[in-house]
This record gives sequence, structure tokens and C-alpha cells, in this order.
Amino acid sequence: MPNQLPVLAADACCTPLVTEALTEESAADLARGFKALGDPVRLRLLSLIASRAGDEVCVCDLTDAFTVSGPTISHHLKVLREAGLIGCQRRGTWVYYWIVPAKLAALSQLLDVSAAATPTTGISA
Amino acid sequence: MPNQLPVLAADACCTPLVTEALTEESAADLARGFKALGDPVRLRLLSLIASRAGDEVCVCDLTDAFTVSGPTISHHLKVLREAGLIGCQRRGTWVYYWIVPAKLAALSQLLDVSAAATPTTGISA
Repeated sequence: MPNQLPVLAADACCTPLVTEALTEESAADLARGFKALGDPVRLRLLSLIASRAGDEVCVCDLTDAFTVSGPTISHHLKVLREAGLIGCQRRGTWVYYWIVPAKLAALSQLLDVSAAATPTTGISA
Repeated sequence: MPNQLPVLAADACCTPLVTEALTEESAADLARGFKALGDPVRLRLLSLIASRAGDEVCVCDLTDAFTVSGPTISHHLKVLREAGLIGCQRRGTWVYYWIVPAKLAALSQLLDVSAAATPTTGISA
């Protein structure tokens, strides 16, 4: 059960895919993260949690923003948690959620096209 | 049909989700991109194309890296194309693929935790 406290440092990084092709193993792990992000409700949940950077968010403050049911929200939060994108802790009646910055940073860096080398085709923006 | 040439500039950007919560409309659009990335074969295909930054890749050079069938590769390339992550052009016998840097940059920036504000919990890395 996760009991990690929110931190903002990203210590687990990825080589951008513009720099180096992914191995099969890395692709399987990273695809799980992207798959968890591939749903509008999950993406909004993550953004609601992330936009309080460094702070926790009570599940009671998340449900109001959605028209879907409480159990559906819980399911989506579980998918985000299992993908390592968020952490949580139950305290009393409520569960509190926070983002896992290192995991988000790893996915962000993988897609970082600014790390690309100069194009060799002679075409520029 | 896409006929755009590969460029490296990223001109379509996103506000990082650590800075601002997503709207329903933005979430739907962005989730489509992440969903396309949420498969190991698609992620490896994208990385094989992206790691030749600025260059096109012939489909004939992609299939050898996978144990899955040609039609399966074609299906996954179609999903990436429909999500706006890659562009393609048929020339003669072969189809040539390139990444769409602006789309990758938008997804990368959304997950950019380095844009976060100073934590208010007093916890630091």
C-alpha cells in the first residue's frame, strides 16, 4: 500500500524516443502508463490532483467535478494508482491522493521532441 | 490524406496539468493521443520512427523489428496516424512515415511536472 508523501522531484527519467528507439521491455512498462492516461475521465482526475502540486487531494473534492458515479471515479483512481501515476493514503473516512512526479516526468521526457537532433532532411520549421 | 513534411518545431502546446486542471474538451482530445500510445507495439513503432528525427521511415524498415504480422503493424500505424502522432505518404510501392513533433510536444508538456509551483506542504525532495 502506497504511503509515500508528495514530492516534486523527478528522479526516474527516460531517454526521449527521438533520441533512441525503445526496447521491448521499456515499451511494455511505459505503455501501461500511457494506457492509464488514455481516458478523458482519468486524465481530468489526474489533472485535478496534479494542479494542486505538492498537495494531497481528498477524494471528496474530486467526485463533484464529474457526472460519473462515485464507484466509477474509484475505479479510474485505481487504474491511475496501479499505473504508478498517483499515490494514496486512507485517513479516517477519506482517501487522499497525490501525483507521483517521477512517473509523470518519465512519460513526459519520453515524448520530449525538443531533445531531437538537427534534422538531416534540410527541412526546418 | 496527410502530406505534411517532417518538421521539428513544436508550435502547439499545452498548459502542464500541474499548473491548471484540464477542461472536459481538452481531456477528450488529449486522451485520444495517450490511448494511441498505450500499446507496447505502437510505442515501439513511434520510437522507431521518432528516433530518425526529421527523417522519414519506410514501412519496409519497420516490420523487421517486430514478430507481429504486417497487417497488425499497419493497423497500429493507422491508430498512431489517426491520433495525429505520425504522418505518412505513399510513394510507389512503399508508405513513408514521420512523427508530428507538435502533437508529441503537446502531450509531453501536459505531463511536465518541472513546471510545478513550489510545494506548499513543506516536503521537498
